[in-house]
Amino acid sequence: MSTNGSVETQLVDSALRTWQQAVDRATKLFSRLNEQELEREVAPEKNRLIYLWGHLLAVSDAMYAQLRLGERLYPEFDAPFLKAPDKTVPLPSAKEVKAAWDEVHERLRVDMAKLTPAEWVERHAVVSEEDFVKEPHRNRFTLLQGRTAHLGFHLGQAVLVK
Amino acid sequence: MSTNGSVETQLVDSALRTWQQAVDRATKLFSRLNEQELEREVAPEKNRLIYLWGHLLAVSDAMYAQLRLGERLYPEFDAPFLKAPDKTVPLPSAKEVKAAWDEVHERLRVDMAKLTPAEWVERHAVVSEEDFVKEPHRNRFTLLQGRTAHLGFHLGQAVLVK
Repeated sequence: MSTNGSVETQLVDSALRTWQQAVDRATKLFSRLNEQELEREVAPEKNRLIYLWGHLLAVSDAMYAQLRLGERLYPEFDAPFLKAPDKTVPLPSAKEVKAAWDEVHERLRVDMAKLTPAEWVERHAVVSEEDFVKEPHRNRFTLLQGRTAHLGFHLGQAVLVK
Repeated sequence: MSTNGSVETQLVDSALRTWQQAVDRATKLFSRLNEQELEREVAPEKNRLIYLWGHLLAVSDAMYAQLRLGERLYPEFDAPFLKAPDKTVPLPSAKEVKAAWDEVHERLRVDMAKLTPAEWVERHAVVSEEDFVKEPHRNRFTLLQGRTAHLGFHLGQAVLVK
């Protein structure tokens, strides 16, 4: 019935669509906000939108290297958006975050599309070759699924802000 | 290197693990709360935890039929948890939600594990056979991905409550 290739190709396509859908939703949500709106907290005493946006960006940027696609672009975003909690250190501007966001997600989109299904079930960089022999489910595809879930998790929080 | 079967089997395994991980996290989060704690809102004027829990339950129960695994168990939960917004109609008790939650997710776990990779890329019940010919990505696997994302989305909200 399908002319869309093998079962494994379709399974990968499905996961990439779900990832991209979450990315597009985040882009739409965050990109239209100004600096002032991005200062809003998702709930009292919780993270600000600008922090969530940068946090998702840092995770996506790291993901590029974790998928063994190449070097990541913005390791300097880990300090403010991953290692430090919100409201403890000065953050990059919304303009910087937006520019990096678009670049990081575009290269992920392009380069993830080049991976074959067999490459998707290869090791990701967070697990050693030794451990991967014992735990072969720690592959690129599982990492993609986890990152999609992480993105959705914070999207759910971001939409609480009107 | 892997003794875990074909590429397509590994891809499906990865998605099922990600789903189950989200389910287990939700089970742990909601099940330990008492009736009073479940009355808390995730943010001011937003949904209560009991509503989110029932909402996720109704979506998972519907998913069983949407995956064409068989009849769903609790269609009566759609009215309070899907069709009505929170705080507009009386809700089933936490005890009822918990019992149904465990049952619904256990049968999903058991029966989804029986689907072959080829069956995962078959049509889900929300799309007609006619439309599926034109849009073959609307398959069971994409539905699973979408439901995993939905679960994560609301988990992100639920964790905002201390």
